[in-house]
Amino acid sequence: MSYDTRAEYKDGMAFDVDLGGHDLRVDAGTDHGGRNYGPTPRSMMLAALSGCTGMDVVAILRKMQMPYDSFAIEVRADSADQHPHVYTAVTVRYLFSGQKVEREKVEKAVTLSLDRYCPVAATLRHTARIDYEIVINQ
Amino acid sequence: MSYDTRAEYKDGMAFDVDLGGHDLRVDAGTDHGGRNYGPTPRSMMLAALSGCTGMDVVAILRKMQMPYDSFAIEVRADSADQHPHVYTAVTVRYLFSGQKVEREKVEKAVTLSLDRYCPVAATLRHTARIDYEIVINQ
Repeated sequence: MSYDTRAEYKDGMAFDVDLGGHDLRVDAGTDHGGRNYGPTPRSMMLAALSGCTGMDVVAILRKMQMPYDSFAIEVRADSADQHPHVYTAVTVRYLFSGQKVEREKVEKAVTLSLDRYCPVAATLRHTARIDYEIVINQ
Repeated sequence: MSYDTRAEYKDGMAFDVDLGGHDLRVDAGTDHGGRNYGPTPRSMMLAALSGCTGMDVVAILRKMQMPYDSFAIEVRADSADQHPHVYTAVTVRYLFSGQKVEREKVEKAVTLSLDRYCPVAATLRHTARIDYEIVINQ
């Protein structure tokens, strides 16, 4: 069969992952039998979320023609104590700088992403409450 | 606030992601305004799944003391036509080689991972049917 991703076991807990021609390494932390040679698989869902909603917001603000100097996203998550330790609460923080940044437009872009467009948010939402914060540095 | 992941917008659709001290770049494909400088955010959920269930299976087979020469995982996924384009069907293929590989043990390890331990599978399962295949090359 064709595949979208292929992970090859190396040693310890490390896998080399081919993802559409891009190479990644995932590993467990030293507390879980790994050597921290790469991000943990579960945490990659948070990286996926940050990129997913980030691209949505970039695209929507471009249509709104709202300029900004910089844009970053921080994600913090809590997870369940019990197996399978799914994420139960996620906070996404959108950080903008720029004199012409308008909170109303950013808010509109963020809610459109989280509520309608971002597949990673739509998936994580089944196990986790997703909150957001917007920080503007003018 | 402290964060688990931080993504910084570069240009086009590309973000540089810091994930627990590991650097990743995510990007959109050329058909979505990106330049394919890194994997797409949504597909990173599949990489997360492959690593997550892979580490579970490695750990469980280690406890079962079942040796093998090589182990790889391939994942293929279909997604919804409508926004937010969540994954709706995922097939995980476990490929083993080795003279002492026992299908029953692999099957036990795989089902324990997918049904009980892997947080990524437990999350994706809310939108996608997850099937698996086991291929043993002795």
